Amino acid sequence: MGTLGVRALPGLPEIGEGADIAALILAAGPAPSDGDIVVVAHKAISKAEGRVRALDSIDPSPRALELAAEHDKDPRHVQVILDESVELIRAERGVLIVRTRHGFVCANAGVDESNAPGERLLVLLPTDPDHSARVLRARLRELSGQAPAVLITDSFGRAWRLGQLDTAIGCAGLAALDDWRGRPDRRGRELRASVIATADAVAAVADLARAKDSGEPVVIVSGLAAHVQADDGPGAAALIRPRDEDLFS
Amino acid sequence: MGTLGVRALPGLPEIGEGADIAALILAAGPAPSDGDIVVVAHKAISKAEGRVRALDSIDPSPRALELAAEHDKDPRHVQVILDESVELIRAERGVLIVRTRHGFVCANAGVDESNAPGERLLVLLPTDPDHSARVLRARLRELSGQAPAVLITDSFGRAWRLGQLDTAIGCAGLAALDDWRGRPDRRGRELRASVIATADAVAAVADLARAKDSGEPVVIVSGLAAHVQADDGPGAAALIRPRDEDLFS
Repeated sequence: MGTLGVRALPGLPEIGEGADIAALILAAGPAPSDGDIVVVAHKAISKAEGRVRALDSIDPSPRALELAAEHDKDPRHVQVILDESVELIRAERGVLIVRTRHGFVCANAGVDESNAPGERLLVLLPTDPDHSARVLRARLRELSGQAPAVLITDSFGRAWRLGQLDTAIGCAGLAALDDWRGRPDRRGRELRASVIATADAVAAVADLARAKDSGEPVVIVSGLAAHVQADDGPGAAALIRPRDEDLFS
Repeated sequence: MGTLGVRALPGLPEIGEGADIAALILAAGPAPSDGDIVVVAHKAISKAEGRVRALDSIDPSPRALELAAEHDKDPRHVQVILDESVELIRAERGVLIVRTRHGFVCANAGVDESNAPGERLLVLLPTDPDHSARVLRARLRELSGQAPAVLITDSFGRAWRLGQLDTAIGCAGLAALDDWRGRPDRRGRELRASVIATADAVAAVADLARAKDSGEPVVIVSGLAAHVQADDGPGAAALIRPRDEDLFS
């Protein structure tokens, strides 16, 4: 590989429920082509899918009130985090680490306060981000004749490291894992076990292309056509470590 | 940002103790320039620093023998993992998750079997990878007049996700963390807490440029000059979550 093109699209217009993200992407610049990867911060997808809750509309349960008081959080925000989770793994220093309904282990179930003016909104993760990625890919193909891979991301913290990394939560047409186990290395020896989390690496690349205050949810990555495939594949769900292999929760 | 150059150098010659990695990099292609980031898989650095042990030379302790029997590992390999660690955090399914002397939480203390022909070697992490990065950067400057940032990486697994990601273990001249907390976003609201692990993102980018069987330890990343700085800075140690903030071990 030589050159990786990493191009942030200019900010999309404010996205409401039902917005046609594919059309907005195609209106914002040259159409991404078959070997490209269209990386979208989940917030745009979530808003288009109506995965948004007005803070004022939420009636917190006693458990949410209790956790909120213990951790100095808004009980309505805590309620939504609990609604999105199957398991509360740690609650400490204002952070709730949960296992989401999708299986992601992350802070606050990925529920963010939105910076919409006038109203306090919570933006949730898409219900099925792999499905969202497949739908967006199909729509891009329908409108442009090209079928780039689609990758949907969120920023996740890490257990033992500071800072967040953008992480794959959904994808279509991108091999999430690149499995080198059993392939001989260049000297003919077996490689040590090595499975590369390609989709997470691409998510991290894309985030380097935008400033966090830029309002640029979409980044087009080119030069990685070797990882793009015609079929949508199993998506980012393939990156979730099965619960019975989890040593830490 | 527009284009990111990600260029894997052709394989370096076999590296022995005392090898001048900077000279080998400069011999392998055009000199990296001030705004570039030279990303080096740690194995090359470790070998040049003599951080290599012959498996046959190691005399395992009773504890190493016991752990090795429980986890179906070579007791000499286990002994070196224990020597490199301050804490054994989990031992399950043949993997020892430890906290290394540097503070990294990772599998097997980063100790790999090397694919050197004829001899079974273990390659350890550098003793002080941030120091290694500073030394390499200074030597590149001395030889070429240019001072690109230097990033030293290893492949780490993740607690809740499958696949490995290349991760920053040492750096010089690269801001490991990009802290956006408190900066207003484009609509003038406070951003939610957001600290980006830039050095880890760059490590992940570089790994996309090489195949695991390529024997290409060095990747030059250009186009990220905004993250490169004249002073060496605190290095990748800044990415280690302090032990008293660790919720999971």
